[in-house]
Amino acid sequence: MITISKPIITLTTDFGLKDHYVASMKGIILQLCPTAQIIDISHLITKYNVKEAAYVLSQTSTYFPKGTIHVAIVDPEVGTQRRRLAIMSRNSYFIGPDNGILIPAASNEEILQIVEVTNREKMLKPLSSTFEARDIFAPIAAHLANGIKLTDLGPELKKTKRLSWGAFNVTSTQAQGLILHIDDFGNIITNIPNSSIESWQKGLYLKINVGLRTKIGILSKSYANASKGKPLVITGSGGFIEIAVNKGSAAILFEAQTNSRIKLETATSIDA
Amino acid sequence: MITISKPIITLTTDFGLKDHYVASMKGIILQLCPTAQIIDISHLITKYNVKEAAYVLSQTSTYFPKGTIHVAIVDPEVGTQRRRLAIMSRNSYFIGPDNGILIPAASNEEILQIVEVTNREKMLKPLSSTFEARDIFAPIAAHLANGIKLTDLGPELKKTKRLSWGAFNVTSTQAQGLILHIDDFGNIITNIPNSSIESWQKGLYLKINVGLRTKIGILSKSYANASKGKPLVITGSGGFIEIAVNKGSAAILFEAQTNSRIKLETATSIDA
Amino acid sequence: MITISKPIITLTTDFGLKDHYVASMKGIILQLCPTAQIIDISHLITKYNVKEAAYVLSQTSTYFPKGTIHVAIVDPEVGTQRRRLAIMSRNSYFIGPDNGILIPAASNEEILQIVEVTNREKMLKPLSSTFEARDIFAPIAAHLANGIKLTDLGPELKKTKRLSWGAFNVTSTQAQGLILHIDDFGNIITNIPNSSIESWQKGLYLKINVGLRTKIGILSKSYANASKGKPLVITGSGGFIEIAVNKGSAAILFEAQTNSRIKLETATSIDA
Repeated sequence: MITISKPIITLTTDFGLKDHYVASMKGIILQLCPTAQIIDISHLITKYNVKEAAYVLSQTSTYFPKGTIHVAIVDPEVGTQRRRLAIMSRNSYFIGPDNGILIPAASNEEILQIVEVTNREKMLKPLSSTFEARDIFAPIAAHLANGIKLTDLGPELKKTKRLSWGAFNVTSTQAQGLILHIDDFGNIITNIPNSSIESWQKGLYLKINVGLRTKIGILSKSYANASKGKPLVITGSGGFIEIAVNKGSAAILFEAQTNSRIKLETATSIDA
Repeated sequence: MITISKPIITLTTDFGLKDHYVASMKGIILQLCPTAQIIDISHLITKYNVKEAAYVLSQTSTYFPKGTIHVAIVDPEVGTQRRRLAIMSRNSYFIGPDNGILIPAASNEEILQIVEVTNREKMLKPLSSTFEARDIFAPIAAHLANGIKLTDLGPELKKTKRLSWGAFNVTSTQAQGLILHIDDFGNIITNIPNSSIESWQKGLYLKINVGLRTKIGILSKSYANASKGKPLVITGSGGFIEIAVNKGSAAILFEAQTNSRIKLETATSIDA
Repeated sequence: MITISKPIITLTTDFGLKDHYVASMKGIILQLCPTAQIIDISHLITKYNVKEAAYVLSQTSTYFPKGTIHVAIVDPEVGTQRRRLAIMSRNSYFIGPDNGILIPAASNEEILQIVEVTNREKMLKPLSSTFEARDIFAPIAAHLANGIKLTDLGPELKKTKRLSWGAFNVTSTQAQGLILHIDDFGNIITNIPNSSIESWQKGLYLKINVGLRTKIGILSKSYANASKGKPLVITGSGGFIEIAVNKGSAAILFEAQTNSRIKLETATSIDA
């Protein structure tokens, strides 16, 4: 592994933006690797929601330069015996607890090596039992940025905890799946890949069912394609089908909640 | 145009801070221009509120170094035929949709050149139809940071969409205008320039009318000049008259909403 | 004082993240010191809460590299005659109003010199009376980053305003104190140092009293040590005892408010 002159370290956590927690990670990183460039991905992941963090990271990590080190910490089991991982993929490194948070992002590229982080020499002293992000994960990221080898951090692993986006089912006239994520605009991102409805034509009417609510919308190319306040279905920028509302919130319109089931059915008219 | 050794790119959006949207822009920028220094102006612009973004950007862009590239994206028409702009002003560059968002900031300096961004070679491939911030505006900003000429991005334009802060009216005894912005402290920023009440003396009592509420306050030099919880009027740091409450929120006290009318009248005593 | 090649300036304010206020500080800093690396500690300090800002800064400043310049602005008296301070401690600089905000952090190290910032030549011209963060504190930070001597900013001071975390009292069977901070997870951070209960054994049952609420919890090593939703007491990563709830919010469970009294008593069983 080559040492990069200005290594990039990204941070994804559920720590919020009010406290000093994120800043302490940054201070430690800059102490150990003064040339590091630290980029926040999100610190507003829903508390303890590992899957949401995994989704957010997997949606953005491929856009970063080769060699970027991604640290992701949503870690309700901090201080227990759960393992800590460092993963080298084709283009990036990933550091975080072994709860699945890193796997979707790392799997976007080819995973080359996984180690369990156990080397106490590369952690702060003394260690707290509640803030491993500062005491373990931040210094590990800095050491990686400085060019340490993965195998200097601990023993190789073959198996890690996995996460699933859940099952989906698509036919020529309907698509069923789950709500993977609700974004800050209230867009409902499903777990159904855009590619699975490639044969469906733009402009098609769709019966959109989310939980207890059903509405008619159009399969559209852009959010502005429906009237203001009206729902629509689009092939999303992240590779998954989205349910949206022009200048409004689909999450509010459909009273949507993450992990709820959604169903789309082709309809012949707006009264379908 | 000279290539700056460490170019600054600022970002102003309504994307929020929970999702990966801002981070994906940053990843793309750093891929194309590794020396770029990215500064967030705000990602908490009220969703779809182009005018608020234009105000916030126009209040801060002049404080950045010469050559700074400002990207502003509040873009409810994304994916439609609305144009995309790159503007060169005397000190800065501005990139964003043609909906007025860039114009107040760019007009703080002398506008030297405007082009419509059409050059597909400088955009990501493939393009999504819903996330041009990542696929078009971020790479364009990076290319500008790398020293590309504006005219390599597309044809010159003479006219763009404009925004107005709205009309105001000031006499020797009263001032009328609109609420331009309500800030995070609850300060009410009006569209009435400080300079228009230069002849009014500090310490003057003022009848402050905002929507249905009327209260008496003093024309003050600092927020702490009124009693705690009491309203006051100040000449704001951004060039516009503000209505504030010492250690409180004028927006709450007056139940204020952006774009509402406000009126200030000189009064001879606190019982006026 | 040595000029650092890539000086670090941190920012702690109650300005929020919606407006241009923080960005304007950054623009000014980068104009005057293009090599500065600016790190946000928090801009979501509760409005006007000087003590919360002092706590947050004091919890993180020691993790930053030697020479870091910390700017902290929660300043309800802005524009009045209150003084402005620049402090040199053993490892860091601290800049802000003289209201106690800097003192706990600066006192974590040995304070070497304090000056009152009065040198108009180092401030923006013209000065606003309401935005000294932009007009005074940001340029002062940049000048310090450029290597100016503290005594070029103004006269030395011997005394400043102080802040206290409040009194606490610990015996072999009970500990009493105050709520110092409630973090974004809802963890209740007390003003009782971890060291004061060193003799108490992990696994001990404790009667936890916060305001009007009393519950039994265990003295634990990690958050996951209690059942989901159950309270626990831990020795916190910041040096103070914390009351927490596994995967939940202690602040909600106890209806806790900053500055309320808390009391812990050893108990022999869960029914104690």
